[in-house]
Amino acid sequence: MTSDSLYEALLSPSSVAIVGASDTPGKTTARPMEYLRRHGWKGELFPVNPTRDTVLGERSWTSLSALPVVPDHAFVLTGADLAVEAVHECAGLGVTVVTVMADGFLEDGGRGSARRAELKEIVRASGVRLLGPGSLGVFAPGAGLALTANAAFAEADPGEGGVFVASQSGSAMGALLSRGLEMGVGFRGMVSTGNELDLTLGEICLASVGDPRIESYALFLENIQGADDLRAFARAAAERGKPILAYKLGRTDAGARLAVSHTGALSGDDAVADALLKDLGIARVRTFEALLEGQNLVRGLPIPSSGAARPRVCVLSTTGGGGAMAVDCLAAAGADLPGPSPETIDRLAETGIVAGHGALIDLTLAGTRYDVMKGALDIVLAAPEFDAVVAVPGSSARFHPDLAVRPIADCAGNGKPLAAFVMPAAPEALRLLRNSGVAAFRTAEACADALLAAFGRRRPAAGDLPRRRIPSDDSEILDEAGSYEILSGAGVPCASHAVVTAGRLPSGLPVPGPVAVKILSADVPHKSDVGGVVLRVTDGAGLRAAVDSIARSVRERLPGVVPERFLVQTMARGVGEALVGFRRDPDAGPVVVLAAGGVLAELYRDRSIRPAPVDTATAREMIDEVIAFRALAGYRGIPMGDLDALAHAVAAVSRLAEADGAAIVEAEVNPLLVLPEGQGVVAVDALVRRERRA
Amino acid sequence: MTSDSLYEALLSPSSVAIVGASDTPGKTTARPMEYLRRHGWKGELFPVNPTRDTVLGERSWTSLSALPVVPDHAFVLTGADLAVEAVHECAGLGVTVVTVMADGFLEDGGRGSARRAELKEIVRASGVRLLGPGSLGVFAPGAGLALTANAAFAEADPGEGGVFVASQSGSAMGALLSRGLEMGVGFRGMVSTGNELDLTLGEICLASVGDPRIESYALFLENIQGADDLRAFARAAAERGKPILAYKLGRTDAGARLAVSHTGALSGDDAVADALLKDLGIARVRTFEALLEGQNLVRGLPIPSSGAARPRVCVLSTTGGGGAMAVDCLAAAGADLPGPSPETIDRLAETGIVAGHGALIDLTLAGTRYDVMKGALDIVLAAPEFDAVVAVPGSSARFHPDLAVRPIADCAGNGKPLAAFVMPAAPEALRLLRNSGVAAFRTAEACADALLAAFGRRRPAAGDLPRRRIPSDDSEILDEAGSYEILSGAGVPCASHAVVTAGRLPSGLPVPGPVAVKILSADVPHKSDVGGVVLRVTDGAGLRAAVDSIARSVRERLPGVVPERFLVQTMARGVGEALVGFRRDPDAGPVVVLAAGGVLAELYRDRSIRPAPVDTATAREMIDEVIAFRALAGYRGIPMGDLDALAHAVAAVSRLAEADGAAIVEAEVNPLLVLPEGQGVVAVDALVRRERRA
Repeated sequence: MTSDSLYEALLSPSSVAIVGASDTPGKTTARPMEYLRRHGWKGELFPVNPTRDTVLGERSWTSLSALPVVPDHAFVLTGADLAVEAVHECAGLGVTVVTVMADGFLEDGGRGSARRAELKEIVRASGVRLLGPGSLGVFAPGAGLALTANAAFAEADPGEGGVFVASQSGSAMGALLSRGLEMGVGFRGMVSTGNELDLTLGEICLASVGDPRIESYALFLENIQGADDLRAFARAAAERGKPILAYKLGRTDAGARLAVSHTGALSGDDAVADALLKDLGIARVRTFEALLEGQNLVRGLPIPSSGAARPRVCVLSTTGGGGAMAVDCLAAAGADLPGPSPETIDRLAETGIVAGHGALIDLTLAGTRYDVMKGALDIVLAAPEFDAVVAVPGSSARFHPDLAVRPIADCAGNGKPLAAFVMPAAPEALRLLRNSGVAAFRTAEACADALLAAFGRRRPAAGDLPRRRIPSDDSEILDEAGSYEILSGAGVPCASHAVVTAGRLPSGLPVPGPVAVKILSADVPHKSDVGGVVLRVTDGAGLRAAVDSIARSVRERLPGVVPERFLVQTMARGVGEALVGFRRDPDAGPVVVLAAGGVLAELYRDRSIRPAPVDTATAREMIDEVIAFRALAGYRGIPMGDLDALAHAVAAVSRLAEADGAAIVEAEVNPLLVLPEGQGVVAVDALVRRERRA
Repeated sequence: MTSDSLYEALLSPSSVAIVGASDTPGKTTARPMEYLRRHGWKGELFPVNPTRDTVLGERSWTSLSALPVVPDHAFVLTGADLAVEAVHECAGLGVTVVTVMADGFLEDGGRGSARRAELKEIVRASGVRLLGPGSLGVFAPGAGLALTANAAFAEADPGEGGVFVASQSGSAMGALLSRGLEMGVGFRGMVSTGNELDLTLGEICLASVGDPRIESYALFLENIQGADDLRAFARAAAERGKPILAYKLGRTDAGARLAVSHTGALSGDDAVADALLKDLGIARVRTFEALLEGQNLVRGLPIPSSGAARPRVCVLSTTGGGGAMAVDCLAAAGADLPGPSPETIDRLAETGIVAGHGALIDLTLAGTRYDVMKGALDIVLAAPEFDAVVAVPGSSARFHPDLAVRPIADCAGNGKPLAAFVMPAAPEALRLLRNSGVAAFRTAEACADALLAAFGRRRPAAGDLPRRRIPSDDSEILDEAGSYEILSGAGVPCASHAVVTAGRLPSGLPVPGPVAVKILSADVPHKSDVGGVVLRVTDGAGLRAAVDSIARSVRERLPGVVPERFLVQTMARGVGEALVGFRRDPDAGPVVVLAAGGVLAELYRDRSIRPAPVDTATAREMIDEVIAFRALAGYRGIPMGDLDALAHAVAAVSRLAEADGAAIVEAEVNPLLVLPEGQGVVAVDALVRRERRA
């Protein structure tokens, strides 16, 4: 099936069947028919109900096979067991898309997994496409296709517009419809993706991307399933200049744990998902409001070619209190608020506006006039020191939008992102701004959220994807020497070291001292805990004593391990410590992680994550994101660390994603010592896990 | 003037004068008359305009002295210079309250400060009370008193209710009116306090607190001025069970800097203001929306007797997506989400509800029925494992509030805080909930914000305030030995030390070694930077060498200092380091600060602040708030630190607030070494500043 025919069957079918349609008005299973009629569905409609000839006053059929034509799209409202039968029947008849509402496919072990397996087999064998199970349906206002059981679609207003919604939560789809109507944001289509047993959110959106009436996307995510589909969609959307905003649950551990119960998949690490979304050019917002309110903002801002830069934002208000609220929220979200340059201050002064050097240009009550606001906006929108402008109209917005709101609307689309935070309750002002293409926000929080999300995106890489094969379960942990071998090969500087065996110790030190002596065995991951490390050894006698001591201690505490081989490693002293990790996330693919060393960095969750590989410029961005590394970048007289070398090491570790021979599953350098500026970095402990060779 | 007569003149005067009333409809200076008429003001109204006989069709007077009676309240709309004259005239006539709208009193040095001095003198000499300057006026819907120039009051709806608003921002007052109208929250009165040259926000609110029609307060703060007034108000409000919510600007540095320009006062440390508000039992919200949406929540929850505990919240939804959003936002805000106990799960099961052990009880679409929702709410509201319940109705709330919203409304006021986050746009559902006394929120963020703010309050202390006198500018920094003397006296363990002089060194060490030797001089605050410290000295010869080396180095780098006295101090080794500080904040009074030692704690701004003094239980709460100390509380096998001893030391430092003899202005112990459990803490460096004795 082509992507176009999939999209057509999903959202502009010529005929739909509703399996399990109820004759009782108001019941959940009666809603799809009621809503289709309310929204003026003009295509063919076949209610299927085994016990009735009519449903809600229309002719109905007792089975799918009794229908006069094969429907393009069947919506199955029955319980789980009957739903499996219905999908089977649809597959046999040649229905293109079947949407299944039932849950009951998620319990572990029991009927649920048997049903899942059955559905998968039907899909595999027949080629029928399945939406759900657990989908509340689809909505396409242009066609009147309110094929959904979500109560929000009792709405009479079609809510048509250019936003396409894909949601892993069926109820969020309804909330987006009603909130969109309230705020004047309209939709081209909506899909509740449910458990994504077959069709993933990414594949559905990819199928839609050619629709010229879709201007932008709003995704409601619980977790990332089918990252490859999402990546393909994100690239296609970026190529067509159709921006994507996403709200994702699971920012907190408590939130992340819930995703398990809802979709059956264990929710992955939210930080990995976050990094993936950024990397795909998807603007992830933290507030539900910003998902719709921010649409105009991303439509007006191409994906920045490199992300992570703090946008320099101008706040221009007619209300000091509201302006200060915007400044506070923007600063808290991470924006830079440089205030106007001397040139801009001069230009404003020429028009009679007195601006200080602070972050806020407050025109005050006196500036609540069309010409004053318009003049000031023209100047700050042209000022090179700002990447974006946030206008904050005050109380006049409610009854006199012509004074301070109209000029904002008239500045839409001049090339620089322009947003408005409207301080009073002023629905008309919000509508006027949104209709003009200005992103208008009811709260300063959503405004800051959307702005930072829009600037935090990165253009998705155009080249080939790194090899993403999921390694087999059969892997082995390399010992420390083997780990250094892999890492050195990848370009990570490792401390000088040699391997010695208990029976044949050299007379002196095999590498420059002082040295650390460590037990060398993949069976002893926590060496220090079992007395497996002796530090500051300076000569051959010390080496022999260290080996004896370690051997004794390890034998005592780990009777199964024979302490035979030892690593002798030149000690080094850094001005700081880093942890650099690499792993292959089952959803997001290979990722690289950078954190500061030590307990505090762990307690503060101070780390940066990116899809791997990264180049050194991106690695520098990662370093900038880790707060602890500010201590190595010229803070209060503390010696500078070699952050360039750290960036090279991060990039080197990240390239393990590409090493096609080694099949590295996971790697961690901890600590990587950061030496003073110009002196490099050096790994003094490391662990690599790789697929076992056949 | 009594508090009652002040309140009456402010918000229910029998006569008002408007000085500078304009005859041109729509002009800012025409608005107060227009709005008074629109809101049905029945008292006497005297427009004053020197050049006209009528204003907006009503008789006007050419001067204040020409009025037939002395008005209770005059609103002065003229520019700054004329405003000073008008206040003077009012004072002479015996007007009770004058409100001044003009700004122009804040420029430093020039006319502004002269005008400020003049106003202050008039107030001092006459007893007239001044609101502003920079006030946009007052509003009392019960009396039709829309005595304000804020455009939001063009509103025809009176918006009457039980909330009293005091705002340092005039525009915020208007935004609160319009947003309140939109959300069905009404007001008893509103005051724009402006620059608070005379009447402070605290004094105004205190004057209002006896009004039986005020149920709760909403404060919009830019900074804390007149903390004593605010404290008196907060106590009076707590006694009467009238809760206070506050939104305060200046959470970020960028936001805090703006407060300078707006009120003339340098905004204080936001963390200090935050600690003060909590301590006064004021619930500080971070989102503007929560300031009104949260009113019903604080009305239903007495101030907890001790704060800082994480409330245990139950989330009960009919929408998985919305429920998960609430869980995410609550967890991010710091709530505990324990999920139902086995007993509660059993009780739910008896009514046919299958709840898992997770944080969310999701009734799903199938549970969208009055009896199901009501039954579940009754059970979780009675369950002892929850302190509060958040209900999350889904799409049905929009068109069928009887299904899942009405049962929430019917559970209002059963003793346990109950809030609702309404997932779709559902204005009627919000109104139904609010009218029933349930706190209903449009966003999960505001819901979590208000809930945590409500539980974060502490009952204001009933006893006497600590001595809060602001020390004179003439203070001296004590040297390290003098600082230890003060701190030891207060009960802080300090490392053994002795003072030696260069000419008369002892033959051995005067205190147990190894020791640190340090230059002792209040003129050398940064000892290490000038070679003023030698560590690990073990005997008399070492002591002599150390003293020579320090003396040489200090002479070389600080030619003005004569290195004569030295501190010899027993070295100690902690498992962690703390910084404990004490200072007298000009607004908030004495405060105690606790942070972890080291650069990272500083970079992460990881600290806890409280008004001083604190008891050891509160000091333990402070320790719990500093993330870095988790490393000393049994984290991953790291040795436990003596956190009880740390708590005692924090309490001891905080009691410097009470030391009436010493007049301590500021003290800092940095570092205070935290020894292993049971071994105490010990100060190894300290600095105390005290008022110079006469």
